[in-house]
Amino acid sequence: MSNHTYKTIELTGTSNKSVEEAIQNAVSRASRTIKEMRWFEVTEIRGNINQNLVNQWQVSFKVGFTIQDE
Amino acid sequence: MSNHTYKTIELTGTSNKSVEEAIQNAVSRASRTIKEMRWFEVTEIRGNINQNLVNQWQVSFKVGFTIQDE
Amino acid sequence: MSNHTYKTIELTGTSNKSVEEAIQNAVSRASRTIKEMRWFEVTEIRGNINQNLVNQWQVSFKVGFTIQDE
Amino acid sequence: MSNHTYKTIELTGTSNKSVEEAIQNAVSRASRTIKEMRWFEVTEIRGNINQNLVNQWQVSFKVGFTIQDE
Amino acid sequence: MSNHTYKTIELTGTSNKSVEEAIQNAVSRASRTIKEMRWFEVTEIRGNINQNLVNQWQVSFKVGFTIQDE
Amino acid sequence: MSNHTYKTIELTGTSNKSVEEAIQNAVSRASRTIKEMRWFEVTEIRGNINQNLVNQWQVSFKVGFTIQDE
Amino acid sequence: MSNHTYKTIELTGTSNKSVEEAIQNAVSRASRTIKEMRWFEVTEIRGNINQNLVNQWQVSFKVGFTIQDE
Amino acid sequence: MSNHTYKTIELTGTSNKSVEEAIQNAVSRASRTIKEMRWFEVTEIRGNINQNLVNQWQVSFKVGFTIQDE
Amino acid sequence: MSNHTYKTIELTGTSNKSVEEAIQNAVSRASRTIKEMRWFEVTEIRGNINQNLVNQWQVSFKVGFTIQDE
Amino acid sequence: MSNHTYKTIELTGTSNKSVEEAIQNAVSRASRTIKEMRWFEVTEIRGNINQNLVNQWQVSFKVGFTIQDE
Amino acid sequence: MSNHTYKTIELTGTSNKSVEEAIQNAVSRASRTIKEMRWFEVTEIRGNINQNLVNQWQVSFKVGFTIQDE
Amino acid sequence: MSNHTYKTIELTGTSNKSVEEAIQNAVSRASRTIKEMRWFEVTEIRGNINQNLVNQWQVSFKVGFTIQDE
Repeated sequence: MSNHTYKTIELTGTSNKSVEEAIQNAVSRASRTIKEMRWFEVTEIRGNINQNLVNQWQVSFKVGFTIQDE
Repeated sequence: MSNHTYKTIELTGTSNKSVEEAIQNAVSRASRTIKEMRWFEVTEIRGNINQNLVNQWQVSFKVGFTIQDE
Repeated sequence: MSNHTYKTIELTGTSNKSVEEAIQNAVSRASRTIKEMRWFEVTEIRGNINQNLVNQWQVSFKVGFTIQDE
Repeated sequence: MSNHTYKTIELTGTSNKSVEEAIQNAVSRASRTIKEMRWFEVTEIRGNINQNLVNQWQVSFKVGFTIQDE
Repeated sequence: MSNHTYKTIELTGTSNKSVEEAIQNAVSRASRTIKEMRWFEVTEIRGNINQNLVNQWQVSFKVGFTIQDE
Repeated sequence: MSNHTYKTIELTGTSNKSVEEAIQNAVSRASRTIKEMRWFEVTEIRGNINQNLVNQWQVSFKVGFTIQDE
Repeated sequence: MSNHTYKTIELTGTSNKSVEEAIQNAVSRASRTIKEMRWFEVTEIRGNINQNLVNQWQVSFKVGFTIQDE
Repeated sequence: MSNHTYKTIELTGTSNKSVEEAIQNAVSRASRTIKEMRWFEVTEIRGNINQNLVNQWQVSFKVGFTIQDE
Repeated sequence: MSNHTYKTIELTGTSNKSVEEAIQNAVSRASRTIKEMRWFEVTEIRGNINQNLVNQWQVSFKVGFTIQDE
Repeated sequence: MSNHTYKTIELTGTSNKSVEEAIQNAVSRASRTIKEMRWFEVTEIRGNINQNLVNQWQVSFKVGFTIQDE
Repeated sequence: MSNHTYKTIELTGTSNKSVEEAIQNAVSRASRTIKEMRWFEVTEIRGNINQNLVNQWQVSFKVGFTIQDE
Repeated sequence: MSNHTYKTIELTGTSNKSVEEAIQNAVSRASRTIKEMRWFEVTEIRGNINQNLVNQWQVSFKVGFTIQDE
């Protein structure tokens, strides 16, 4: 098994609809500058309430990516 | 930034369908007596299984609200 | 209240679609050999990313079942 | 399975005798104002020592109860 | 040692100046409705940043008080 | 010191009387199929309340046993 | 309120009978060299099993005492 | 509520004087390269002792900022 | 990505020599009855001391394996 | 880099004024018997409330010192 | 003691041989872009198993470095 | 099983070579004043980096020993 080095960063994605969409939104946004994202792990699920309705899901997660050789 | 005091309580909501609906159900029910709920944070996701089907999602979360001036 | 003994095991279910489906998939698969599953508690929500899309949800959870009398 | 909303509060009970009695003491005292307590979960076991004797058990626990419809 | 029952609630106080003042602010505000607060324990120290200055300290803490006999 | 391999499983025992009895009940029940249990470690103390009385102690614990050579 | 400094050490007491006795045993033994023990907090409840019987309770706890002026 | 993506990084600030100043020092220093810092959360309070005096406060915290559109 | 279900168990391996060997010893021993072990995660590193020498490393870890179709 | 052995103990300092002073008070008091204290790490921030005023800060921390050669 | 600001990032290094080598591999790889790494702290030790052999150690750790003045 | 009382202290050992040697170094050094050390449990693995090489392993661990009768 060849050896790589990975870096993990922490992102928070938001969505009006679901936990799953909040994560996908952040991955899509982060992909403009980060290549080779490989896995994620949820660290926190929070949200915002307005007039007794959950109007935003805020999901924090660690995402790992391969440090690429130049 | 003006200073407020917030109180946090812990609720458990239930739903036959999803994590998201379990939280919204509890927020709706709690809104009869609590005003100004502002944010929440999930602390536990559990559920009930009956005949090999998840028939209830039980989501515990802390919810914060502003202590209002009378 | 009559006294029972319960055993808890840890499973990881996967789904291309949602956290909820990942758990149900694992419960369905485990039901071939485990009877009387009663409750579960999520311990970890992870996933796989491929070309900037979450292509698999991986949800770990503890599931409890009654130790049955033979 | 019908859906309810539960509230969880944290109490600390005390006893000169045992962990079990400390919890029962607090449940009895709290029952004057809280109805429908259903389950508890111990969060901390502490105590007081006087002249090298444990003279008080102090047990903190979360207790959950159904939010009743008026 | 006589036995009492204590209840613990969670508050978040805010201050533009310090961690200590954020807690005192919340205790003062809560004292309008809660009597006999006895101790607290800090659970989270957060804050808000505006134009690179910490302009608000937000300190969450558990506060315990004696459940009084009527 | 000779080297062995141990396996740890998680059980929940119940009792109407005490934390200690809940654990012994589960160890006795599990001993029908598991040999060589050696140690345990409590992971959770919960219980059930009925009409303001603790009517069941539910104690979860990890129990380790030697994997025996056939 | 006058200010003191406290030191906390960690002990493990054992008993064939109960969690409570294990703690008292250790406090009694430690009192030969430590004066002014004031409070304790349980950190771990373990035990030993022999022939399917819990034959020893092992309770670890932190105990605090006043650093006395000479 | 419009959806943004946030990134969280971890910094350690130092001060000879207080916890609060240690955080402000690090925020000021980080602001040379990071724009739009919005909130922080303390993760660790440590310090250095020299000749029985606390001569440096070292405060670690997570700080979140909006990932800006180019 | 095809969906599988994984089961996680907890083992403790021992070695007189190193953390790494303790894990390999337990994996080798467990492989007599468990097929398709895929990954592990260390949960605890303990050891035994005899006459001031570490004479045994005891490493606990979770190990995951695919639940195979019969 | 030369190798040393360090011991860590846990202290609780108190102050009527601030978190920082509570730590310094305990370090000063402990220095009568412990030499070479090098670093500390805060583990708990608690306090006492009297008539709705925080009248004592109680800060627990681990402090490390070099085990000196005689 | 002069005040600096430190940044902490999280890396995962891999090795076929040992925990120690996995960390050194990642530090060496990261040193191409990060200067002044000063300390690290292990957060997770995992690994991969192939045909009952640990064929890769995967060690996650936080590494801190001084934010340099330009 | 006869009952003993154990005390646990926390040490940090260092080594230029490995995690295992760091622990053994501290046990050897501590044995000059502590008799009857029986077991240990690792609480933290840290290290120092100099010019991109790990030049010191710093391993913190709790070590338990029997409180001996005089």
